[in-house]
Amino acid sequence: MNLSILFGGASFEHEISIVSAITLKEKLSTFNLTFIFCDTDHTFYLIEASKMKAKTFSSGAHKKMPVLHLEKGCFFQKSMFSKTQIDGTVLNLIHGADGEDGTVAALLDFYTIPFIGPRVDACTFSYDKRYTKYLCEALDVKTVEYQVLRKNELNNLHIAYPIIVKPARLGSSIGVSIVKEESELDYALDVAFEFDETVIVEPFLEGVKEYNLAGYCAKDAMHFSIVEEPNKEEFLDFEKKYMDFSRSEQVLGAVISEELTAKLQHNFKKVYDRMFEGALIRCDFFVHNDQVLLNEINPIPGSMANYLFEDFAKAIEELSQSLPHKQKVKVNYEYIHSISKAKGK
Amino acid sequence: MNLSILFGGASFEHEISIVSAITLKEKLSTFNLTFIFCDTDHTFYLIEASKMKAKTFSSGAHKKMPVLHLEKGCFFQKSMFSKTQIDGTVLNLIHGADGEDGTVAALLDFYTIPFIGPRVDACTFSYDKRYTKYLCEALDVKTVEYQVLRKNELNNLHIAYPIIVKPARLGSSIGVSIVKEESELDYALDVAFEFDETVIVEPFLEGVKEYNLAGYCAKDAMHFSIVEEPNKEEFLDFEKKYMDFSRSEQVLGAVISEELTAKLQHNFKKVYDRMFEGALIRCDFFVHNDQVLLNEINPIPGSMANYLFEDFAKAIEELSQSLPHKQKVKVNYEYIHSISKAKGK
Repeated sequence: MNLSILFGGASFEHEISIVSAITLKEKLSTFNLTFIFCDTDHTFYLIEASKMKAKTFSSGAHKKMPVLHLEKGCFFQKSMFSKTQIDGTVLNLIHGADGEDGTVAALLDFYTIPFIGPRVDACTFSYDKRYTKYLCEALDVKTVEYQVLRKNELNNLHIAYPIIVKPARLGSSIGVSIVKEESELDYALDVAFEFDETVIVEPFLEGVKEYNLAGYCAKDAMHFSIVEEPNKEEFLDFEKKYMDFSRSEQVLGAVISEELTAKLQHNFKKVYDRMFEGALIRCDFFVHNDQVLLNEINPIPGSMANYLFEDFAKAIEELSQSLPHKQKVKVNYEYIHSISKAKGK
Repeated sequence: MNLSILFGGASFEHEISIVSAITLKEKLSTFNLTFIFCDTDHTFYLIEASKMKAKTFSSGAHKKMPVLHLEKGCFFQKSMFSKTQIDGTVLNLIHGADGEDGTVAALLDFYTIPFIGPRVDACTFSYDKRYTKYLCEALDVKTVEYQVLRKNELNNLHIAYPIIVKPARLGSSIGVSIVKEESELDYALDVAFEFDETVIVEPFLEGVKEYNLAGYCAKDAMHFSIVEEPNKEEFLDFEKKYMDFSRSEQVLGAVISEELTAKLQHNFKKVYDRMFEGALIRCDFFVHNDQVLLNEINPIPGSMANYLFEDFAKAIEELSQSLPHKQKVKVNYEYIHSISKAKGK
């Protein structure tokens, strides 16, 4: 099966995406893979499989590789007298901006290129943590209490310390701090506001249990990964999470009751249903005082959370055969005709 | 000032967009206008101003006009030995799918083309009436009670008749019915489900007052239009609303109290703020039992609601000078370097 891995992007998580792509090269070696790199200036490059190494990008060597363009149905490479098409499904592996904010989804949809990844609405509701809260509230999925703070506004905090401060629209723990007392708040806000004008504050829950669950819908059924209890220090900072993005060995499932597993899956399905079709996502949950709380939706998780699946290649193949289709629109100019007639033009 | 009007699109409201564009040709005659038509197959055509007539499109004559392509910073026209760039700001005038669902916003943002119109998040929250409800709930803006029905599911209606049935993601009253009793429900649902798999049901409020208000943010301040009390029959069907899209004469303001005007503006601002920047939108409100209820957000209203503004050309000029900018991302490959070193590669 042909699969194009699209990675990079004009995103703070650009480098993480490169690591994800290198990891998937190994995990999806049974596929006929193509690698499409999106540079931070939005130029696309075709990267030879043998050059899929961190150095290619950090040295700028990718800029000497063939440039790709978009047209209806595919990416293509121009040469003097011909065009070479890149056929097959695209796997959107751009983390953060571009990939997770709806840009890539809209772009590929516009050019009718089939792709694995979240659609525009799904991006809006998962990329910005505020909107994830809106979604969960509407769907009756519990989350941690929160407050929105805005740059250059007087912000009265009404959540008790310790708190966790996060830029609204970044993953991978970038710009995130735990604040134990008021004296530390200004610095934490300065850091977070560097990445986003909107910041989310939540209580930092002591003694919380954390569980990650990935899944996707294929052939009208949900397919879930094992549940992982992530190896947790106080919280993973960017560098530790970064190493996390290159994980490729299957992990052991968390030792939890069937009841809890079912609860996590139930909450996952509520969020996924009619919103995330076409994507393999990871939901990160908290369990606090016996309540399941949704912490975060990762619509393009690091290295696609491959390590949570027994047969990851099969998951990607199944998913690629169950991609949602946009409704076709027919225009017959009936109304324009009738108006033109009415006006006598 | 150069302004490119982008219209058409693969949308059920394709023809309405053509009428809007023809109307704006007159209203914005002081601008240096270019007309870019997006056909239903997503080909862009450059339309000569003198050909901006309904017949050009209904006869297919537009297919003989120059094809435009997208590249960084602009649309351009290829000829044998050269490229002609179309410079200036784009006004996104594609109603419905493509224009209002985030596709065009993402496309223009990706190619860094400045544009007037809703950004991706703003589209998600206004295009789908369900998500407008989510947004209003989160922002504490009152709306009409509602229920979501889904195709091919057993739907237990818990709203009393008469009700109004609407496809979740269409404007211009397409697929909308008023249902007075149960015997009429199945037919109304069949009609609505033809356009969307998700349908919104609301109580049909008798004796409701309707008010429309348009506005935009420029130079950090909100600018509001007059408030209009639309000429209302039971409700405007597609054909009547369609004629509405070619309106160009300024209407008289509704005779309402300063207090009500302020309330409408307050609710408008709550919804617009930090979401719709870059767009001129129209919000349609109900007043029922002395309560202001938001009925609908039109992020690209028919003919840009020009008839509600005293000086529409000035509004568009001001807006074009206050477009939001995406945060620039710098990548220094610091993390990749440190990982490569740690691994000794």
